[in-house]
Amino acid sequence: MRATLLTFLLICLCLPAFSQTPEQRLEELGIELPEPSSPVANYVKYVQSGNLLFLSGHGPCDREFLGKVGSDLSVDQGYASARNTGICLLATLKMAVGDLSRVKRVIRVFGMVNAADDFTEHSQVINGCSDLLTEVFGENGKHVRAAVGMASLPGNIPVEIEMIVELND
Amino acid sequence: MRATLLTFLLICLCLPAFSQTPEQRLEELGIELPEPSSPVANYVKYVQSGNLLFLSGHGPCDREFLGKVGSDLSVDQGYASARNTGICLLATLKMAVGDLSRVKRVIRVFGMVNAADDFTEHSQVINGCSDLLTEVFGENGKHVRAAVGMASLPGNIPVEIEMIVELND
Amino acid sequence: MRATLLTFLLICLCLPAFSQTPEQRLEELGIELPEPSSPVANYVKYVQSGNLLFLSGHGPCDREFLGKVGSDLSVDQGYASARNTGICLLATLKMAVGDLSRVKRVIRVFGMVNAADDFTEHSQVINGCSDLLTEVFGENGKHVRAAVGMASLPGNIPVEIEMIVELND
Repeated sequence: MRATLLTFLLICLCLPAFSQTPEQRLEELGIELPEPSSPVANYVKYVQSGNLLFLSGHGPCDREFLGKVGSDLSVDQGYASARNTGICLLATLKMAVGDLSRVKRVIRVFGMVNAADDFTEHSQVINGCSDLLTEVFGENGKHVRAAVGMASLPGNIPVEIEMIVELND
Repeated sequence: MRATLLTFLLICLCLPAFSQTPEQRLEELGIELPEPSSPVANYVKYVQSGNLLFLSGHGPCDREFLGKVGSDLSVDQGYASARNTGICLLATLKMAVGDLSRVKRVIRVFGMVNAADDFTEHSQVINGCSDLLTEVFGENGKHVRAAVGMASLPGNIPVEIEMIVELND
Repeated sequence: MRATLLTFLLICLCLPAFSQTPEQRLEELGIELPEPSSPVANYVKYVQSGNLLFLSGHGPCDREFLGKVGSDLSVDQGYASARNTGICLLATLKMAVGDLSRVKRVIRVFGMVNAADDFTEHSQVINGCSDLLTEVFGENGKHVRAAVGMASLPGNIPVEIEMIVELND
């Protein structure tokens, strides 16, 4: 009887951690989503088709680092750039869906690193985005992924990341 | 009364511009779609799944320019190559759907530029394709996009572009 | 009467070739699917959404060749690497769906070659994967494709390939 009560109390104490919304998790992580920028050309930041939401390739919005990872920038600076890019993707996602709880699953992250031609640690860089998505969405934040090296990126940004998300009906 | 009549006449005059089919817009732009080429290997130019149409990576079909944008070619030549690639994508799309009015929305354009490793103007190049899609499909031509730099492309083509399109039911 | 019987016998003899399962074709090709590896970071090897199965970017699992195709490696070694990558993708696919006959169609192959910046034969390399998919799935293995050159890839692998597959309901 006492054991049952204890279990019940433990469940009550632990449940809030799991029932937090993505927005609450962002707050706990001390992350404030920036105002999403508008594209300056004939394209858009997101398109919904059925319950799939496609997001444009995003770069970091803090523009703290510029250049190639592996030569101009360290892997840690690349990781920070990928994490910030993830925050910019979430800002666009939030604008698209209003409430991040509408996200059923992050499906695909395509992580492109502006990299020297002998660079090998693309995974460690794109982890910056993947770790963030898992912190915010838990298991539903886990996605298929590619982490690859580009010859160059627009405006010499260190990373650009595309994303596909599945929404709840 | 006179004002109402005038409004009515204005609407009648303007409507045709908006109710043009994509084919009519192509004609107005002076664009004739080329005969789509056939893949020479074990792949196809398009696959439909549900109401999504996936198109293979296409290069320019006029083969006017070859080489790297930013070193061999100017940004303007890259733009022209991306516009021509868009025309080749439309030729494949037309072959796939018969009538371009069946296109509900262009969802995704993945624009790959054969670029020097210090190139930064990928967006200006891929605008060649994005501008065309908007001229032909209007707001429905606006898509999510990435514009990125590749180390090299097949046959040294300056751009290669992948596309996903949503079809009407 | 005799002609009809002969036709009937011929059909009976030929049918097995066409009604082979993908697993039987793999066996005939002498291919044993390896144990799929687990991702070491916050991502997964596959995600299903509706009847679409998205697979992460895979590299060769035999790790026989490392380096850039066109400088460190020949096109033939690149082809072998792309074929082996296809085998690793099939291993993940089999883990995901249990029975490869559940595959309705291979939709998209995105073939990334770790390539020198003057490399032009990306198609010949990625054919290694496309040929395999066609041998295993027949016409249903034919997909849209891009075959492009990356500045660098994780761990200096010669190819990385992403795939989308449509499953039967």
